[in-house]
Amino acid sequence: MDNYKQRRLQPIAFQAVQFRDTFWQPRIELVREQTIPFEYLQCKETGRIDALRLDWEPGQEPTPHIFWESDLAKWLEAASYSLATHPDADLDALLDQVIALLAAAQQPDGYLNVYFTVVEPGRRWTDLRDAHELYCAGHLIEAGVAHFEVTGKRTLLAVVQRYADYIATVFGPEPGQKRGYCGHEEIELALVRLYRTTGDQKYLRLSQYFIDERGQPPLYFEQEATERGTPGFFGETLPERAEQLAMFRQYNQSHQPVREQREVVGHAVRAMYLYCAMADLALELHDPSLVQACERLWQHLTTKRMYLTGGIGPSSANEGFTTDYDLPNETAYAETCAAVGLVFWAHRMLHLDCDGRYADVLEQTLYNGVLSGISLDGKKFFYVNPLASTGQTHRQEWFGCACCPPNIARLLSSLGQYMYSQGDAEVAVHLYATSEARLQVGAHTLMMRQQTQYPWDGAIRLDLELASPARFALKLRIPGWCTRPVLRVNGVVVEVASCLEKGYARIERTWQNGDSVELHLPMPVTRIYAHPAVVADTGCVALQRGPLVYCVESADNPVPLNQLQLPVDQPLHPEFKPDILNGVVMLQGSACVPDLTDWNDCLYRTRKLRMQETRLTAIPYFAWDNRQPGAMRVWIRELSI
Amino acid sequence: MDNYKQRRLQPIAFQAVQFRDTFWQPRIELVREQTIPFEYLQCKETGRIDALRLDWEPGQEPTPHIFWESDLAKWLEAASYSLATHPDADLDALLDQVIALLAAAQQPDGYLNVYFTVVEPGRRWTDLRDAHELYCAGHLIEAGVAHFEVTGKRTLLAVVQRYADYIATVFGPEPGQKRGYCGHEEIELALVRLYRTTGDQKYLRLSQYFIDERGQPPLYFEQEATERGTPGFFGETLPERAEQLAMFRQYNQSHQPVREQREVVGHAVRAMYLYCAMADLALELHDPSLVQACERLWQHLTTKRMYLTGGIGPSSANEGFTTDYDLPNETAYAETCAAVGLVFWAHRMLHLDCDGRYADVLEQTLYNGVLSGISLDGKKFFYVNPLASTGQTHRQEWFGCACCPPNIARLLSSLGQYMYSQGDAEVAVHLYATSEARLQVGAHTLMMRQQTQYPWDGAIRLDLELASPARFALKLRIPGWCTRPVLRVNGVVVEVASCLEKGYARIERTWQNGDSVELHLPMPVTRIYAHPAVVADTGCVALQRGPLVYCVESADNPVPLNQLQLPVDQPLHPEFKPDILNGVVMLQGSACVPDLTDWNDCLYRTRKLRMQETRLTAIPYFAWDNRQPGAMRVWIRELSI
Repeated sequence: MDNYKQRRLQPIAFQAVQFRDTFWQPRIELVREQTIPFEYLQCKETGRIDALRLDWEPGQEPTPHIFWESDLAKWLEAASYSLATHPDADLDALLDQVIALLAAAQQPDGYLNVYFTVVEPGRRWTDLRDAHELYCAGHLIEAGVAHFEVTGKRTLLAVVQRYADYIATVFGPEPGQKRGYCGHEEIELALVRLYRTTGDQKYLRLSQYFIDERGQPPLYFEQEATERGTPGFFGETLPERAEQLAMFRQYNQSHQPVREQREVVGHAVRAMYLYCAMADLALELHDPSLVQACERLWQHLTTKRMYLTGGIGPSSANEGFTTDYDLPNETAYAETCAAVGLVFWAHRMLHLDCDGRYADVLEQTLYNGVLSGISLDGKKFFYVNPLASTGQTHRQEWFGCACCPPNIARLLSSLGQYMYSQGDAEVAVHLYATSEARLQVGAHTLMMRQQTQYPWDGAIRLDLELASPARFALKLRIPGWCTRPVLRVNGVVVEVASCLEKGYARIERTWQNGDSVELHLPMPVTRIYAHPAVVADTGCVALQRGPLVYCVESADNPVPLNQLQLPVDQPLHPEFKPDILNGVVMLQGSACVPDLTDWNDCLYRTRKLRMQETRLTAIPYFAWDNRQPGAMRVWIRELSI
Repeated sequence: MDNYKQRRLQPIAFQAVQFRDTFWQPRIELVREQTIPFEYLQCKETGRIDALRLDWEPGQEPTPHIFWESDLAKWLEAASYSLATHPDADLDALLDQVIALLAAAQQPDGYLNVYFTVVEPGRRWTDLRDAHELYCAGHLIEAGVAHFEVTGKRTLLAVVQRYADYIATVFGPEPGQKRGYCGHEEIELALVRLYRTTGDQKYLRLSQYFIDERGQPPLYFEQEATERGTPGFFGETLPERAEQLAMFRQYNQSHQPVREQREVVGHAVRAMYLYCAMADLALELHDPSLVQACERLWQHLTTKRMYLTGGIGPSSANEGFTTDYDLPNETAYAETCAAVGLVFWAHRMLHLDCDGRYADVLEQTLYNGVLSGISLDGKKFFYVNPLASTGQTHRQEWFGCACCPPNIARLLSSLGQYMYSQGDAEVAVHLYATSEARLQVGAHTLMMRQQTQYPWDGAIRLDLELASPARFALKLRIPGWCTRPVLRVNGVVVEVASCLEKGYARIERTWQNGDSVELHLPMPVTRIYAHPAVVADTGCVALQRGPLVYCVESADNPVPLNQLQLPVDQPLHPEFKPDILNGVVMLQGSACVPDLTDWNDCLYRTRKLRMQETRLTAIPYFAWDNRQPGAMRVWIRELSI
């Protein structure tokens, strides 16, 4: 990670990519046609829009909630993105309306928060730990930046800049300023976005202040609690026992200064948003101490505390992390927002160092832990993404705490940005999908066309269109799951091993208009084993093909799934089924279940169980719970003989 | 089960057997020397004795608790038994003192309960569901019977008879009587004991009334709750949802008339005590409907809801039963008292029908689920008996709810009764231990001497001493775990298969003084498999040798026990270790653990785990947690190849 200062590779704007595929493009359309309108309706029906009129009276139902602005802001952000790829005058006008309400709700000093304006007007900034004020501000800022970048309108951007300007007067190290920071990180990364869009260094400095101050002794949240004299918004008082106190502090990653943090702890979404900001600042400030902290935390997360699906945060108790290797399947929390946050973080790490490790996790999380969060019809959502179910877990239309649906919507609506990075003399291809992209390599405009059936098939063809020949390096990601890639440039085989650099095949040459690259990433069905310390997966195997993690579901396997056993050498055959689950590759083969006719009516016996053959059918994990309710398992017992 | 009316076989008095062995005899001594004095001290120190003075004043600490009499009564019962085998003038005098206090605490009408005399004097019999009044009465009655039978003194017997006489006026089907029964069964079996000792039919009829009335609509506890107008002693109000209401009623087995009950449900100890009374009444009343109910419940318990150790009731939520095959290991509740209750019930079933199935469960529960409840030094106890531990579970000296320690004490102090049954023309040997017994076969007195190293070795020699030759059948239990027994009478082999009757080798002949029987029960190390529906044990195997279930403990196996795997064909070698855990047979052999040097710092990979050899040492389950704290497992993963 020595090249971050050179900033060779930059993220691209999401609008630069047009999906033309049958996997992402229909999903992005679904988000535009179903999810975004539905979310607006939910925001409207639950009072989240009308609350902006600030006409709430005590006793009136519903009472505005402290995190309502964040739901609305994520909808604004997603809706803005969707306008870029699909102009829509009605939606544009609807955004203008909501933005006008936000502008009108903004206070003379720039403050903008419904709850602390109408419900508890006297308590502004008194509970940074629990009250989500700066968190909501952060989401509003992201929405303002997104709206401006897509529409060119400064309406919302001006509102959030005024708000940020005001926040910059309240918080900071100067005398008279509060030395606080938010219990739910988000504003830190939002301020870096605002800085990048406006060029105003003040926002970068404020973000840096929040990050540097976090966890410095004496702990702000404890001073604040003492001053406040009451428990926080969610009622917690400070635990007395040292162990509990440590967990309480870790919950919002304020237990120690961020550069000293070595383990991913606490609330998973908060952790991801914090690490995003740390990575952003590492890049902007050329701060190796932040790079190192990010790298350590990444290593810890991905080698000790991440589900195979990219889901993170196993516990519902803290919506977050517990201990190393504690990855229970049925009770996995693995919040959709945390997976979305991991994609955000991975994307930022990739621009600190173009290493396939980051892109691998980005892809793994996107195709599995994120995508499982939304139903195939785009109308229902998982807040929690277990890796095994006895049949009681189902997606819902909406949640009281509605963070996940709009988070998926904004991610999918801006998915193009994750496909490529560009630099003065390099282009990196991170993800594969039939698409067209307009990239900039130094002074050259490069049109890149991808053709592939990815993720169902690993044959990929890239066609380059250039006004004039240009020398640059094309970096093609060779996924970590792929062991035998085959690469051809204009039909001539290029030995991948000879040009592999941190997980990317790097082809530096003078590229001509009409050049083509063919990459074949064979997708055998692969068995995955978990580290033996992951007790929940002991004796079990997971199935993966390409980037997709598979699962067995009752709908296809009418046997007790926890008794299903897959013989160790049993091959499984992939087959694309166009009529099932909107078209998926299913895996099929022979497996075993206990032969219960071989058991008398006894509970224990000395003779080993006799097995009988059964058929096993696996579907991609993301597609589960889209048919009749039933059990599901990712980790299947493996039968040695 | 056709012979119950003939009552061929009767239980024996526990005093008829003198243990001379190195397994039970030291334990019985330990109970006498350590446990019984210690329990008295605890009763004294916690106020359970002094409360009998009835001088408690409101506000005074401690407040007498509703179940204090039951703890004291079980101590009285155990102490009485110990006097039989080991006269002790001091203990005898101490019993007299406590009995005098009890007598003085008895109210003029015969009522005897501290809590409802001094703490809530107006609320007698208002909360049969939760307040344990009749339960405490039952234990006092058992103590009174035991004290009389051992000492011949009627002091306590007279007290409990007066109490029972009074109870018989309060409860029953006659006008003016309460049509209630106790939420915690116990008095029903106690009244049968009182009837057997006194010959007074009134007690039998009262027991029959309680059993017949239980669960009859309209449900008494619900009428009582309505009349009371308040929640029960433990605060529960009636749940609204049908499913929860059913569980609430099942908790104390009052959900339906007992003859209609087909599944063991609710609080496990309560269930066992209920079934004991049902078996007692089935015998006394020659009631086939109760026999059938008992038999159905027995089948259900032993084929669907019993741990391998004889532990029962997996859930802490209701201290009882959940669903079929739900037998989690780490979170197993398996209360010691429930195992004791199962021994009581099995013993009663055995006298309805001398079937080895009952004796097998009796032995299995006694050597494993009961014995694990007490430490090797007799001073510490398990209330809860998990079958796996990560090292956090340890025996304690005493419990706020101190039911288990005295329950073990009374069982071990009267253990002799479980060894044999006798009848007019039959003697049955249920358990094996070096001992001397004085039995009655019709008119003949039979002195039976057993010599064996059981449970460490299966060679057993029985010598018969008779004043004159006598024709009778000697029934020797062939344990269910033993596949190749060898039997010799006076040195001549008798083919077991030819004389096997419901799990007993039956040798009918004219027995002479000096006859001997040699029974060899080979004890290979056996692997036990659980029904595949027991998810907790999937892929695992348990080890058993003779009647003993084994476990692995960290003290002997310095590896992560949940990663330990036992190859399917790996032999394990038993060896008696005189210096370990007071002398136990350990099992030793080779096993496997994951070779972690073969893993890089990754969480998931495609290559199957490489295993490395390690040594496995197993100890009897009952002996766990007697050395340094650490993990424990009964069910060990089995490695197929």
